[in-house]
Amino acid sequence: MVTEILEEGMEAVEKKLASIVRSDVAVLEDASLHIVSSGGKRVRPRMVLLGYLAAGGTDIDSVIPLAAAVEMVHTATLVHDDINDHSETRRGKITVHARWGRTFALLTGDYLFTKVYELMAPYGTEPNVIIADACTKLVEGETLQAAAAKSGSMDRETYKQIISLKTASLFEASAKLGALLAGTDEDTVAALADYAYNLGLTFQIVDDILDIIGDADAMGKPTGLDVSQNRGVAMAQNGGEEVITAVAELEPEEETDPIKLMMQNLRESGAVEVARFQADEMAGRARKALTRVPPSGARDELESLIDLVLDRDH
Amino acid sequence: MVTEILEEGMEAVEKKLASIVRSDVAVLEDASLHIVSSGGKRVRPRMVLLGYLAAGGTDIDSVIPLAAAVEMVHTATLVHDDINDHSETRRGKITVHARWGRTFALLTGDYLFTKVYELMAPYGTEPNVIIADACTKLVEGETLQAAAAKSGSMDRETYKQIISLKTASLFEASAKLGALLAGTDEDTVAALADYAYNLGLTFQIVDDILDIIGDADAMGKPTGLDVSQNRGVAMAQNGGEEVITAVAELEPEEETDPIKLMMQNLRESGAVEVARFQADEMAGRARKALTRVPPSGARDELESLIDLVLDRDH
Repeated sequence: MVTEILEEGMEAVEKKLASIVRSDVAVLEDASLHIVSSGGKRVRPRMVLLGYLAAGGTDIDSVIPLAAAVEMVHTATLVHDDINDHSETRRGKITVHARWGRTFALLTGDYLFTKVYELMAPYGTEPNVIIADACTKLVEGETLQAAAAKSGSMDRETYKQIISLKTASLFEASAKLGALLAGTDEDTVAALADYAYNLGLTFQIVDDILDIIGDADAMGKPTGLDVSQNRGVAMAQNGGEEVITAVAELEPEEETDPIKLMMQNLRESGAVEVARFQADEMAGRARKALTRVPPSGARDELESLIDLVLDRDH
Repeated sequence: MVTEILEEGMEAVEKKLASIVRSDVAVLEDASLHIVSSGGKRVRPRMVLLGYLAAGGTDIDSVIPLAAAVEMVHTATLVHDDINDHSETRRGKITVHARWGRTFALLTGDYLFTKVYELMAPYGTEPNVIIADACTKLVEGETLQAAAAKSGSMDRETYKQIISLKTASLFEASAKLGALLAGTDEDTVAALADYAYNLGLTFQIVDDILDIIGDADAMGKPTGLDVSQNRGVAMAQNGGEEVITAVAELEPEEETDPIKLMMQNLRESGAVEVARFQADEMAGRARKALTRVPPSGARDELESLIDLVLDRDH
């Protein structure tokens, strides 16, 4: 029953994403459709819909634009990220940047941001304040990450701050808004927000683990990219500095691909195990937060989502 | 009296712009302050405040965040434009892109966009729908311009469409929102919107003329840039195609700087006179729209703004 409502809702979100980017300017519509129709895990809109249902909401149509909006925030940042990372593939397809060039990719990302406004406008003040705050945090997280990559100084504290800002905040806002719009009590809203925040942290840590040990084909994008940006290094509890040093000291004839070697070193350093341990811990916090939410089919779905996030291979 | 209220309001807008970009992420705050404190003509926030006053609004503090928001939209697009145009100077200062590099400039532009949300959120649905629409049009206009520059196909119709989307729409939204928030009647809102739309067209045409004949020092940015992007060419009523052809056929030993030559050709082709004629026509429409607004000190200010826009040298 909940599964059906959820899947129908997710289909409606897909339709909304595709219809909202319609434009008389062909390149904007083409590039936008290219990225919004490229799949993706759609975890954030799922947070909105399940947050709404778990909080007792009964008119799922009313949160479809909101669910599309949070996915649109994420999509806009992906397009801009791919410019900054010079990425050629995303979700198994060529990136907007690689296909249409930097200028149009930048404008497409901006265009998708304006579509977030359009989708959010009807929801009034409080939801817009929450989304605005999550968007600001997301950009701050991306910036911290770029700054740390540039300076080469990434420690565990910075890593945690980055994943909190750039990933967990939007997860949190998604579930919180779904719950708010269901008109539930403050405690349930807070519990669902808490759940989603910790699921977001789990999700990002798993993502970074997959970047080290994952298979490029299953991921649909090149692995090792985050490592090359110094983020993966922070996973190593003690060995971060040493790993970088080891790579830097390599003679060129010993190894041709420093990223591959760094990944191998990270695998061997125990960093992945530490990260995995932390992911499990965050997942535990998400699970605990759920106990403060009244039992329902939607709550069960949220619980199984934790396992999906932990066990995914892409 | 109105002048005093307006200038106090504009000071409050400056303070709002500076305070809203505060961030724990130093590079975002520094780069944002660099661009928001670099002056600029501030025509858009002036549209908001004068639209509000001309429509009978009496609590100017209530529209300060809105006025800051429309300037922030403009500022965010400037930061991204300078990336795409590889511009080194803006308002007499180094660009964010030149000083902090492309990655941080892209993120700073995104950050300023999130600040538009933050500023707009408290205004509720209708103002947010209007701003979202204006933002979408702005990005569509920028994209049309980039597409036309790339394909080398710019005609008068496309030029008009571009300046309507990328400049006039935000002017229109600014005055319209000011008037709406004053709670005036529909006719006055429409008249002020009509005025601002035409003032926006006038403003952009004059801007493009200054790009051809203006002095780089007075402008605070290199002139000839828009011409090199093919936009200036559209000013030539009959000679657009011929001008491009003439430049393309030049022997290298005849002229080393094709942009300077194109500007010279545009000056000689009568394009500037045609554009000037059109600017005057749009200014006339703006003036006519004002007659449908009840007389007031604010309306007089709006009227003198037309002359300022027409006669400016930078």
